[in-house]
Amino acid sequence: MSTTQEIPTAALSPLHPPKRYLFGPGPSMVHPRVYEAMGKPIVGHLDPYFFQIMGEIEQLLKMAYGTTDGVTMVISGTGSAGMEASVANFVESGKKFAVFANGYFCDRISEMGKRQGANLVRFEKPWGETFSDQEARDFIRREKPDVVAFVNAETSTGALQPGDAICAAAHEVGALVIADCVTSLGSMPIHADKTGIDVAYSCTQKGLSCPPGLSPMFLSQRAMDWLSKRTTTPRTWYLDLKLIRDYTTVSRRYHHTAPISMFYALREALAVIAEEGIENRWERHLRCHKMFVKGIESMGLRMHVPEGHRIWTLNTVCVPQGIDDANVRTRLLDAQGIEIPGGFGPLAGKVFRVGIMGPLATEDNVNFLLREFKKALQAEGYRSSGAVS
Amino acid sequence: MSTTQEIPTAALSPLHPPKRYLFGPGPSMVHPRVYEAMGKPIVGHLDPYFFQIMGEIEQLLKMAYGTTDGVTMVISGTGSAGMEASVANFVESGKKFAVFANGYFCDRISEMGKRQGANLVRFEKPWGETFSDQEARDFIRREKPDVVAFVNAETSTGALQPGDAICAAAHEVGALVIADCVTSLGSMPIHADKTGIDVAYSCTQKGLSCPPGLSPMFLSQRAMDWLSKRTTTPRTWYLDLKLIRDYTTVSRRYHHTAPISMFYALREALAVIAEEGIENRWERHLRCHKMFVKGIESMGLRMHVPEGHRIWTLNTVCVPQGIDDANVRTRLLDAQGIEIPGGFGPLAGKVFRVGIMGPLATEDNVNFLLREFKKALQAEGYRSSGAVS
Repeated sequence: MSTTQEIPTAALSPLHPPKRYLFGPGPSMVHPRVYEAMGKPIVGHLDPYFFQIMGEIEQLLKMAYGTTDGVTMVISGTGSAGMEASVANFVESGKKFAVFANGYFCDRISEMGKRQGANLVRFEKPWGETFSDQEARDFIRREKPDVVAFVNAETSTGALQPGDAICAAAHEVGALVIADCVTSLGSMPIHADKTGIDVAYSCTQKGLSCPPGLSPMFLSQRAMDWLSKRTTTPRTWYLDLKLIRDYTTVSRRYHHTAPISMFYALREALAVIAEEGIENRWERHLRCHKMFVKGIESMGLRMHVPEGHRIWTLNTVCVPQGIDDANVRTRLLDAQGIEIPGGFGPLAGKVFRVGIMGPLATEDNVNFLLREFKKALQAEGYRSSGAVS
Repeated sequence: MSTTQEIPTAALSPLHPPKRYLFGPGPSMVHPRVYEAMGKPIVGHLDPYFFQIMGEIEQLLKMAYGTTDGVTMVISGTGSAGMEASVANFVESGKKFAVFANGYFCDRISEMGKRQGANLVRFEKPWGETFSDQEARDFIRREKPDVVAFVNAETSTGALQPGDAICAAAHEVGALVIADCVTSLGSMPIHADKTGIDVAYSCTQKGLSCPPGLSPMFLSQRAMDWLSKRTTTPRTWYLDLKLIRDYTTVSRRYHHTAPISMFYALREALAVIAEEGIENRWERHLRCHKMFVKGIESMGLRMHVPEGHRIWTLNTVCVPQGIDDANVRTRLLDAQGIEIPGGFGPLAGKVFRVGIMGPLATEDNVNFLLREFKKALQAEGYRSSGAVS
């Protein structure tokens, strides 16, 4: 058995993380009030105070999901747990599951569908492209699936996929729609009910400025009705939405021990957003996104996704010819503690993935980032006629 | 859409939880250093610093699991997610799954086995009883299962089930053994390798004095070998242990975005335990358990579980005749913020479930609890000849 003596002293002293500027796709920077909330004393998972916090979260999430209809709830796992909860609860074995596939997270949701035993059909496009309304309609009308999934804001590519045409066509053929809102919730407009989304999931560590650990979900009334009529039992017990909702909202009967401090964090992050005003926050993110793109283009660099199809929260900047993106990223991390991940899959080595979210979405921070980014590129030999304002 | 105007002011101001003494089965009190750790700035989930913290956690967990062999890892979900990870990864559809069933969590693991399509066989006993070595051997030799599960420390009953005979018999017939260590890890001796446990899971919010949110696991070399040879794909992607281990330890390839602040918390909680010394901590919990039982018996009250079969962390005290346990518990909560849950299932209304863990496992705190408990009982009309020392 390991004894205390064998454990290095460094592992015993209080932890001391380095300071990072998290300009990546998430986790993004956390609001100071959220850190404070996590330091507050926990109560039990069946304490009336905890249910009060849960109720506040559900209400505040309706604001973030831009809806007055349906229900919101929170999964005790990260965004990927929300994805799995969506698939495991709504995609039954043998049913047809249609996925719009143009990035990494579309592949992940496809894989989850396969594991549930679904009959998977995919409409594939290169990473970074999007589906037109007509393409979306044609695919759905042809396939007549039981469930459709799309990724609203693809972190792997920076592309925005609107949901209106997808949802309308899906409802025509009687299908439910799952929307991945992992990179849009809290920083980009979502109008879940108006768009016609049935099941949406997200995370806490991107647009909500909270650490990772929970997955906030939205379910339309249609999805709730479908769920109450489901006759087969989901394979998952931990992510069984009927059991979870019974705990959080209906009977308040124990299901699992909810991560209290993370719920405190999420409640506080949402309160901070409500104080700013959700529309103001969306506007602030759009402004910073535009400012960043302008700065990038003035350096002579190109964006991977065409204008009008970009998400505001995560910018994919093409790596210029002859530059090794890893070296640039290492320079940024070493010199300033700036974290910017690269691309992966088909975009490995081809893009930088720059997130501008929450506390970093200010004019000063974008200027700081552009300045440092240019410095690092130049140190790697990049030359252009553009100048950062 | 909900607008900021519609949200009550109370949901916008910083949250302000009440102070509770968590004398329940968990969440238990959190060490101050752990709260501090959660307030520290997060880094990315692929940051070298994060992998350093993860490495420290894995090493410190070997100390808590009392092993030098096998591997430890952490699931990004609560204890029940660890239970589901154990079942979903090791119990294949159609295989025989034998469960020792003498409490609530044995039922939960049975339910998970059924959902995985297992051929479930149960050895049932009333809640609070345990299985003798001979009974365990006879059952396993007769059933020859593929996987065996037992609950080491049952929170619903307060009973301790040793694993040595179970593991020896299971290995005789070539079965793997899953042990629920949710209420023992960190506060009661576990000798995972010596006992012969193949798969163990726990939580953070009981014996580790950390908020809920993660599930620390132990896997024997035998379990790892089995896993690497498994030819079917688990239904779960989020809890697929091969993928998770590849992220945390092997290739460090992205799987999900780990809950950074919760990992900080767990690392700090384990460092605090290592500083005290794990054997000293076990000893402290035993001492406080004995002191509590003595106090309870001197009030003329009885313990539900016979001596020698009790867990130290969670004490089930029989509700005396004529007393409504809910009234006593409400008095404790209202007067002192003391949280003590009642029994449930067959033990509803029959026991108090008193947890004495972590920072509350001191002589002063046990005396405080006994005094207040006696006061509340007396206010409800309880009379006995005993006196609290």
